[in-house]
Amino acid sequence: MSLKPHDGFVFNHTMLRIKNPVVSVDFYEQVFGMTLLRKLDFPEMSFSLYFLAKLGESDTPPTDEGERTQWTFSQRGVLELTHNWGTESDADFKYHDGNAQPQGFGHICFAVPDLNRAVAWFDEKGLDYVKRPDQGKMKNVAFVKDPDGYWIEIVQPDLLGGLGR
Amino acid sequence: MSLKPHDGFVFNHTMLRIKNPVVSVDFYEQVFGMTLLRKLDFPEMSFSLYFLAKLGESDTPPTDEGERTQWTFSQRGVLELTHNWGTESDADFKYHDGNAQPQGFGHICFAVPDLNRAVAWFDEKGLDYVKRPDQGKMKNVAFVKDPDGYWIEIVQPDLLGGLGR
Repeated sequence: MSLKPHDGFVFNHTMLRIKNPVVSVDFYEQVFGMTLLRKLDFPEMSFSLYFLAKLGESDTPPTDEGERTQWTFSQRGVLELTHNWGTESDADFKYHDGNAQPQGFGHICFAVPDLNRAVAWFDEKGLDYVKRPDQGKMKNVAFVKDPDGYWIEIVQPDLLGGLGR
Repeated sequence: MSLKPHDGFVFNHTMLRIKNPVVSVDFYEQVFGMTLLRKLDFPEMSFSLYFLAKLGESDTPPTDEGERTQWTFSQRGVLELTHNWGTESDADFKYHDGNAQPQGFGHICFAVPDLNRAVAWFDEKGLDYVKRPDQGKMKNVAFVKDPDGYWIEIVQPDLLGGLGR
């Protein structure tokens, strides 16, 4: 069997810029149960990177820092948050969510085992909604906002078997 | 052990709007070896969704359409491309990459087993670079562009153990 040029490629992560890492890392940890795998600081360029993943039971990230960095870059489904130092103390600073004009990036999405229970959890945490499951044309799909206003889609996979044509 | 509200959550996908699905789906299939898991059409809203993933050897998506949709929404590391019908025939139409102002979304990233071999492959396919591995301050990291100009970071995990502080 011949080796293909893209054998072993892994869709590793999606990067979003965030205004305040204290707020955003806490949000993804507390609300979505993600784990901060690595924080990488680049003082000469005045930014830090936060790599988070929603680990499954069988995921065992190494404890050694270098090995853990390699492991982080080898996984699927990692979220990289970029913090350019200082934005958190600028009251007027705001990132662009990609859904207002000019459009491009749309959202990230989490699958959940039970949409109603997830919505109750998000309500308990006081999240802002773009749309609740019963609003709009696409039922059984919710959109919440993260601290920077990025949209997070929430779906329950076994409710979506009949989606689209 | 008590159940946590975010148990079973999965970071499923990242959505990017694309101008032309023929060009973009071909790009992600041919260059990155991704598989188009599902195409979902919404004629009443004049858009289509394309869900792609870079499958591993142990991934076995179901063939039944409904089951395959559910399976797609249950995975990590899926890329959703949204096509609003008609944009492909508007010569002036262009999506925003998130790195020009106003900034927000930054990039997606693929891990590759061999960065040099990947770069040779991208050169063979004629890809545009944001930066080659030997340019800029971050060595061993490349950025290429997808057909809409979205940035795709390319990393070889075992070269990055010493990244950052």
